[in-house]
Amino acid sequence: MNRHLLSVDDLTADDVAVLFETAAEMHDVQSREVKKLPALRGRTVVNLFFEDSTRTRSSFEIAGKWLSADVVNVSAKGSSASKGESLRDTVLTVCAMGVDGLVVRHGASGAAHQVSGWVDAVVVNAGDGTHEHPTQALLDAYTLQRRLGSLAGRHVVIVGDLTHSRVFRSNVKCLALLGAEVTVVAPPTLMPSGVEAWSRDAGFATSYDLDEVLPKADAVMMLRVQRERMSGGFFPSAREYTVGYGLTRERLGLLRPGAPICHPGPMNRGLEIAADAADAAQSVVLDQVSAGVALRMSVLYHLLAGEGGAA
Amino acid sequence: MNRHLLSVDDLTADDVAVLFETAAEMHDVQSREVKKLPALRGRTVVNLFFEDSTRTRSSFEIAGKWLSADVVNVSAKGSSASKGESLRDTVLTVCAMGVDGLVVRHGASGAAHQVSGWVDAVVVNAGDGTHEHPTQALLDAYTLQRRLGSLAGRHVVIVGDLTHSRVFRSNVKCLALLGAEVTVVAPPTLMPSGVEAWSRDAGFATSYDLDEVLPKADAVMMLRVQRERMSGGFFPSAREYTVGYGLTRERLGLLRPGAPICHPGPMNRGLEIAADAADAAQSVVLDQVSAGVALRMSVLYHLLAGEGGAA
Amino acid sequence: MNRHLLSVDDLTADDVAVLFETAAEMHDVQSREVKKLPALRGRTVVNLFFEDSTRTRSSFEIAGKWLSADVVNVSAKGSSASKGESLRDTVLTVCAMGVDGLVVRHGASGAAHQVSGWVDAVVVNAGDGTHEHPTQALLDAYTLQRRLGSLAGRHVVIVGDLTHSRVFRSNVKCLALLGAEVTVVAPPTLMPSGVEAWSRDAGFATSYDLDEVLPKADAVMMLRVQRERMSGGFFPSAREYTVGYGLTRERLGLLRPGAPICHPGPMNRGLEIAADAADAAQSVVLDQVSAGVALRMSVLYHLLAGEGGAA
Repeated sequence: MNRHLLSVDDLTADDVAVLFETAAEMHDVQSREVKKLPALRGRTVVNLFFEDSTRTRSSFEIAGKWLSADVVNVSAKGSSASKGESLRDTVLTVCAMGVDGLVVRHGASGAAHQVSGWVDAVVVNAGDGTHEHPTQALLDAYTLQRRLGSLAGRHVVIVGDLTHSRVFRSNVKCLALLGAEVTVVAPPTLMPSGVEAWSRDAGFATSYDLDEVLPKADAVMMLRVQRERMSGGFFPSAREYTVGYGLTRERLGLLRPGAPICHPGPMNRGLEIAADAADAAQSVVLDQVSAGVALRMSVLYHLLAGEGGAA
Repeated sequence: MNRHLLSVDDLTADDVAVLFETAAEMHDVQSREVKKLPALRGRTVVNLFFEDSTRTRSSFEIAGKWLSADVVNVSAKGSSASKGESLRDTVLTVCAMGVDGLVVRHGASGAAHQVSGWVDAVVVNAGDGTHEHPTQALLDAYTLQRRLGSLAGRHVVIVGDLTHSRVFRSNVKCLALLGAEVTVVAPPTLMPSGVEAWSRDAGFATSYDLDEVLPKADAVMMLRVQRERMSGGFFPSAREYTVGYGLTRERLGLLRPGAPICHPGPMNRGLEIAADAADAAQSVVLDQVSAGVALRMSVLYHLLAGEGGAA
Repeated sequence: MNRHLLSVDDLTADDVAVLFETAAEMHDVQSREVKKLPALRGRTVVNLFFEDSTRTRSSFEIAGKWLSADVVNVSAKGSSASKGESLRDTVLTVCAMGVDGLVVRHGASGAAHQVSGWVDAVVVNAGDGTHEHPTQALLDAYTLQRRLGSLAGRHVVIVGDLTHSRVFRSNVKCLALLGAEVTVVAPPTLMPSGVEAWSRDAGFATSYDLDEVLPKADAVMMLRVQRERMSGGFFPSAREYTVGYGLTRERLGLLRPGAPICHPGPMNRGLEIAADAADAAQSVVLDQVSAGVALRMSVLYHLLAGEGGAA
C-alpha cells in the first residue's frame, strides 16, 4: 500500500480488499459496547480542514479515537491560513508539532497531493476541490459490496452534478478497480467537459436519460446538488433538475427490487432525492455513514500502525 | 429510570434521589487530583449543539471525559444543518457513526423529544427552545439540597423572564418533585400566558412583587435576562427591570441570612443581579457550576453505563 | 518555580534551566512512535482563548494530550463572554468545573495576571495583549540554545514591530536571564516609546539600522508584521518595511554562516522575511514549532504534576 491515501489511484485491487477486510473487523468493533482498540495509542492525528465538513471531520475523529490515537481538530477558520500564511507553511507548522497522520480537506484540487510532498506525516485526502475524496469512494464501494457481494460485473449508476463532484471522480475509479460497470448520468450542463474521452479510457458509460438507465442498475448513487448552482439559466432550476434527474417517488418504481440507493449526504430531500427514496428499505444512506467510520479506522490503521506501533 | 433524559417529567422522586447520590460520589471524585473513572471507557458521547453554549457544552464534555468516554463536539455552525439538511437527517447521520449518547441543544422546543424518537442512542436534553433544560434544574436542586438539606417544605423563589425560560420550566417541576414550595416572580409582560391555570395544577404561586416575596424565601433563583429583550416599550427597560425585579444590594437585606442565591449564568451583573448579591457569601453560583459537572457525570453514568459497561 | 507562568519575570535562571532540561526529555519523547506519558492523567487543562490562535492552541492541546491530561478547548467566540459576561465570571465559571490548569490567551495586556488572582487553577499566559507570551520566549531561547550551546555572551538581534509585540517583550527578558546580549531593531514609528530608559535598565541595545547590526548577530529573530498596520502614512508601507527591515535575500548574505534565523510564525513571506531566508538551512522556524510542544509539555508538567500527581 502507498504511504499516503491521496487518490483511488494510489490503490490496487488487493489494497482495497485488505482495507475492506480490516473495515469489516472494525465494523464488528463498532457494534460492541466498548469500541476502543489500542492500535494507535501514542499516535497523533490532525484533522486539518480548510473547508467545513462536520460529517467527514467527525467520522475521522471518531475513527481515530476508537483506535486510541490523540486527535486534534484544526479548522482553517481562525487559523494562521486566514492571517495570510501560505498553505505550505501552515502544513509544515502543524506537522512540526509531531503529527503522525494528517487528514486534509481543502477547496483546491490537488491540495492533498501537494501537502504529501512537504511532510513526513502520512496524508489522507478528505476531499480536495473537485478532484477526489477517496475514503468516500471506498466506503461507498464497501457498503455496496456488503449488500451485493462481489461488485464484479455489477452495474452502478451515478447521478448528479458530475462537473463539480469529487465523490464522482473517486467513485468511478474505485468501482472500476472492483470490476463494476458504471454509467454516469447528468444534465448536459453538469456533465464534465471531455467526458467522452475520459469515459472511453476509464471504461464507464454516460447518459442523459435517467429513466432509460435506472431499470438496468444494480445500485444507484445520487450525488448532492449544490442548491446555489440550481438557479436556472445555464444550469437547470431546482424544479427542472428534480423532474429530469431526481430520484423521485415515480422513478423508485423503475429500480430493481432491493437495488441499493446511495447518497453521500447531506441530502437535499425533494431535490435530488425524494423522501420515499431516502427512507426506502433499499436505501443504504445510513449504512454508508456507519461504514465510513469502520473504513476510516481501517485506513488509519493500515497507514499509521507501522512496525513500531502498538498493533 | 427512563432511557432518555428529555424533561424532568421523565424522572420520579426516586430517580432524582439516585442521581443525587451518584452526583455526590462524583463530586468527591472532582476534588481529587486524579479525576478519571473508567465507567464509560469505550463509549462515545456526542455534544450536538445547534445553539452556542460554551458553558453547558464544556460541562458535559468534562463530565464525559472524566468518565473516560470519547467525547466529540459537533456544532451546528459549519455543519450539514447549515447546508439545508433536515434535523432528522443530521441526527440520524451522527448516530449512525456509532454514538452511544447524544447531548442535544436546540433552539426549538420539543427538539430533544423528537430526536429521541429517531435514534437508538441515549438522548440528553441540554436545552430545547423555551421548553426544558433538565440537567440545569437537577444541578440547581442538588446545589440547594446540599445547602439546605431536604427541600421538602422549603420555599424557593424564582425570578425573571419566565416567558422565555426553559430553566424556569424545568425547575418548577423538579422542585415540586422534591416537595419544595415555589413562588415565581416576573414583570407582567414576562409572566407566561396561562400561568394561573398552570400554577394551580403544578402547585406553585405567582407574584409580581419581589419585595413582598423575598423575606419568605429559603432560597432565590435569579434567571438570566436577555438584554436584547429589555428595550422598553412593551417589555420593561433594563433600568425598570432592575428597579422592579433585580436582586439589588437593597433587596439583599430582605433575604433571610444565609438563604442561597442561585443563577444559572451567564450573569448580567447590574441587571438582574447586583455584584453584591452575586459575590455574597450566600451566593451559590459557582457551586452550581461545580455541581453541574458532578450531576452530568451522574446522568451520563446512569443512562450509559449499562450491563455491558465497564462499570 | 512560581505557581503560575504569567511572565518571564516569574522565572529565575535556574527555573529556565530546569524547564529546558525537561523539555529536552520531552523532545525525545516526541520523536518516538508512542508519545504518550502518564504524568498528567486525571488532570484537566482548559485552553481558554479570547483571541484566535490555532497555532498556540494546538501546541498546548498536543502538549497536554501527550501528558495524558484531559484537554478542553473553550473559544471566546460563542462563549458566555460574547453574551456580556465579565472576564472574571467567565474564568471563575470555567475553573469551577474542576480545572487544574488554565491556558489563557487574551487581547488585553495583564489579563493573565488578573485571571491568576481569581482562581485556584494554575494559569499559563499564552499571550496577553502587547504584554507577554512567555512560552514563546522560552521555546525561542530553547531552540537557540540547542543550536548555539550556552547563550551567555551570544548576540541576538530582534527585528520588527516592537511596539505591538508581546513576543519581543518576553524575549528580551528571557534572553537577558540567559546572559545573551540583545539588540532590537525597528523602524522609528514601531519602536516603543520610552525604549531608551527601558533598554538601559534591561541591558539591551536599540538600532534603526538592520544592515549595520546583522553582521554582528549570532542569531536573528524576525517578528511578524501585522499587514493591516503597514498602510503607509505614519507607519511604513509594506514595501518600505521590507526595504528597510525585512530579512531579504540580500541581507541573508550579511548574516554569519549558520546563524539561526527565528520567526514565531505565521510568516508573511516577502514582507518581513524573504522565502530564501525562511527556507535557508540556518532557518530554525520549524525547530521552534517542534520545540514549542516539548517546552509546553515541560511547563505543564512542572506546574501541574504536583506531589499528588501520577508522576
